Amino acid sequence: MAKEKKLVESITSMEEDFAQWYTDVVKKAELIDYTSVKGCMVIKPAGYAIWENIQHELDRRFKEAGVENVYLPMFIPESLLQKEKDHVEGFAPEVAWVTHGGLEPLQERLCVRPTSETLFCDFYANDIHSYRDLPRVYNQWCSVVRWEKTTRPFLRSREFLWQEGHTAHATAEEAEERTIQMLNLYADFCEEVLAIPVIRGQKTDKEKFAGAESTYTIEAMMHDGKALQSGTSHNFGDGFAKAFEIQYADKDNTLKYVHQTSWGVSTRMIGAIIMVHGDDSGLVLPPRIAPVQAMVIPVRQKAEGVMEKAEEILQAMIRAGIRAKLDDTDKSPGWKFSEQEMRGIPVRIEMGPKDLEAGQAVLVRRDTREKTVVQIPEIPEKVQELLDTMQKEMLERARVHMEKHTYTALTKEEFKKTADEKPGFIKAMWCGCQECEDAAKEEIGVTSRCMPFRQEILSDTCVFCGKPAKKLVYWGKAY
Amino acid sequence: MAKEKKLVESITSMEEDFAQWYTDVVKKAELIDYTSVKGCMVIKPAGYAIWENIQHELDRRFKEAGVENVYLPMFIPESLLQKEKDHVEGFAPEVAWVTHGGLEPLQERLCVRPTSETLFCDFYANDIHSYRDLPRVYNQWCSVVRWEKTTRPFLRSREFLWQEGHTAHATAEEAEERTIQMLNLYADFCEEVLAIPVIRGQKTDKEKFAGAESTYTIEAMMHDGKALQSGTSHNFGDGFAKAFEIQYADKDNTLKYVHQTSWGVSTRMIGAIIMVHGDDSGLVLPPRIAPVQAMVIPVRQKAEGVMEKAEEILQAMIRAGIRAKLDDTDKSPGWKFSEQEMRGIPVRIEMGPKDLEAGQAVLVRRDTREKTVVQIPEIPEKVQELLDTMQKEMLERARVHMEKHTYTALTKEEFKKTADEKPGFIKAMWCGCQECEDAAKEEIGVTSRCMPFRQEILSDTCVFCGKPAKKLVYWGKAY
Repeated sequence: MAKEKKLVESITSMEEDFAQWYTDVVKKAELIDYTSVKGCMVIKPAGYAIWENIQHELDRRFKEAGVENVYLPMFIPESLLQKEKDHVEGFAPEVAWVTHGGLEPLQERLCVRPTSETLFCDFYANDIHSYRDLPRVYNQWCSVVRWEKTTRPFLRSREFLWQEGHTAHATAEEAEERTIQMLNLYADFCEEVLAIPVIRGQKTDKEKFAGAESTYTIEAMMHDGKALQSGTSHNFGDGFAKAFEIQYADKDNTLKYVHQTSWGVSTRMIGAIIMVHGDDSGLVLPPRIAPVQAMVIPVRQKAEGVMEKAEEILQAMIRAGIRAKLDDTDKSPGWKFSEQEMRGIPVRIEMGPKDLEAGQAVLVRRDTREKTVVQIPEIPEKVQELLDTMQKEMLERARVHMEKHTYTALTKEEFKKTADEKPGFIKAMWCGCQECEDAAKEEIGVTSRCMPFRQEILSDTCVFCGKPAKKLVYWGKAY
Repeated sequence: MAKEKKLVESITSMEEDFAQWYTDVVKKAELIDYTSVKGCMVIKPAGYAIWENIQHELDRRFKEAGVENVYLPMFIPESLLQKEKDHVEGFAPEVAWVTHGGLEPLQERLCVRPTSETLFCDFYANDIHSYRDLPRVYNQWCSVVRWEKTTRPFLRSREFLWQEGHTAHATAEEAEERTIQMLNLYADFCEEVLAIPVIRGQKTDKEKFAGAESTYTIEAMMHDGKALQSGTSHNFGDGFAKAFEIQYADKDNTLKYVHQTSWGVSTRMIGAIIMVHGDDSGLVLPPRIAPVQAMVIPVRQKAEGVMEKAEEILQAMIRAGIRAKLDDTDKSPGWKFSEQEMRGIPVRIEMGPKDLEAGQAVLVRRDTREKTVVQIPEIPEKVQELLDTMQKEMLERARVHMEKHTYTALTKEEFKKTADEKPGFIKAMWCGCQECEDAAKEEIGVTSRCMPFRQEILSDTCVFCGKPAKKLVYWGKAY
């Protein structure tokens, strides 16, 4: 029993130290490992399988939305990065520079892509000639590098995996439509698949992407009340097109600039899953994204007939389309239970000699720990029911948590008091000027998360300066 | 018609200039585009979709073989690269070096991974403790960088996409078994899916991978008779384990070194598909790997009922599981035929008003151009039959081509004459010494491709030096 306790005890409690709990979970659930390369991580099989499921489901949705996949180089010549002024200012301070190829110095430095707007623009400038070539709706799955000073697994690392979509359109309207379409695609994916409710909205000018005309975002609330920006979609208007000379001959035979967008989500989403759903026993994976949905754990597995029946149950679940596994290692059942819980596997099926005799097994839900005794032939159906219920209830629970920790503030005092005492989102009116936004950050320690699509009018005046209010804004501390 | 001719005429004939034909095809079939980054390319949707199909099918086979996917950093600290002597000598001259992160110089240079043996070893040294942790059978899909001087799309570029498997085993036997297993997996994939026959064999010491004990390879013959090394699998023995101190506690409680392997295939495979199957009208894609397997091309599409029926045919094929599309653009049918041929789409379905009246359509096979008139309701079944036949016959045709261009040589004179006059493989006996291999390269211009698993005895003596022969070797000029 000492060994079993060790696994469980080795996680810090969430309430005690959330940051340490997070670090413990990513290690103990075997999602990542640290490396000799500072700020970079190994994504281990249990972590990568989650990413594969995210990719698979998103890619299917992309393709339905007319997206085609491509691959562009990982290097950007310095002169190319500099073509769009705001963009280079935003990214140049945090890129990694390649200066030598083999034994020789390069004539021009190359940066490792922090994002690929400039490469796509360079490509589109050659590739787009006529209105017939539009729209271009391309995406790539790749890794990018940003030379961050402080890093945390999945949330902020020097290299991370993501997808970046880059599109070119004939009109401003079509570009705006695509920007919103992709944001909604991300939001639906988060809610339907990851069971994470999100606030959909627009970033303020201060918080928007370097070079964008407007940036849209989905913001999720973690268990500790902090916000995690979980996906963004940018409308560039024709700013990049002008910097890179991307023009097309329209039907009337005049040359026009294209309008562009870009949008991306990353392995950060895995961080969101952990911090929204996890508990003091480890990870809790939403069934739709869980690499293993059900784990059969035999009790007294050497007793006659137990392993045979466990294998039979496993095969019945696999036939029913459930991603199931059987833990037939020589560890103790208690140890296996802890491991299954730590890894967040949604349902476990316990079965020992007594169950076998009674023709039954015990199903245990990971999130509520609720136990159900089920006749063996009914297991696949019951497990599927549990998975469906759990998926729904996890979303619901996260939604209640977010709503419970979303506050409103009508005065600066109220705002400050809420921010100091109650972790969560604060809804408050804003005049639209950056001074107030800067004050919120410097004096109160929160940033504007977004101007939600669903606007409300709490009052007529800005919560900070008292001038006429322009927008309702979600504010919060963020990862 | 002028426009249509242009598309076709713009490809150089294969017999006239094979290299130029290749370059023309990759561009005109819209597989790639060149970029501002020297030696790097854009893989466009038509090219990337082939890679996605390769990934999908290989990944499925990997998982059946017990492989788990992971992701390791793209950077290797210089000190780590240097830990295995042969390995660093092989790769250091051709890596790209990152020297600055953001605005500051790095304390230690990082290279962009040319391959990840050293990173996996560093990881395994931390990750493997006991015999219970073995085997580790990990793989990653990623891009790697090698600073090549001369580059060609898909065949040799500074950055390319690949997968690299890296495994650790308790025993030498198990490592050897895995090395061979993965080579056979690659070979079966090439033959069954890409319709490319390959020679399976072992590399000579001169040609083996930097740091490997033995390297196995599959060698394919291109249309011009040259060899393309299409996949390799390496057994490292315990060489890397000793350099990186990767030890495990065995059941008897003694510390032992692990035995390792690595194996990879890359976007080079797309080059092989082009050069094995292509013809003077462009690409010819094996049906199992073709992103689009059948293209419906309406003739006089504005005539009553034509588009409706074309759409109906399309939907019937999609329902039957065929990857089908309909070309409903306003280009002329002749132009569409040329495009479909250039892109290598295996089957086209032509249908105009007269066909509609007769309740039929014309199916045209891309490889033989054979036409079949088919009643409309039978189209899905007939197309599927054509796809199956084509897949089989393409492999058969490539096999006949390879056999026809495989020669034997019993004397050096015969060898030299064959190498000079007949492009292809030469089978000849070899004594096993590197001097003879060097001579073959310097005097005759061929390299040893492999010592095939299926050995034959052509004579008792080395074709070069007359000393006793040890092995039958395939020789050839190679990409």
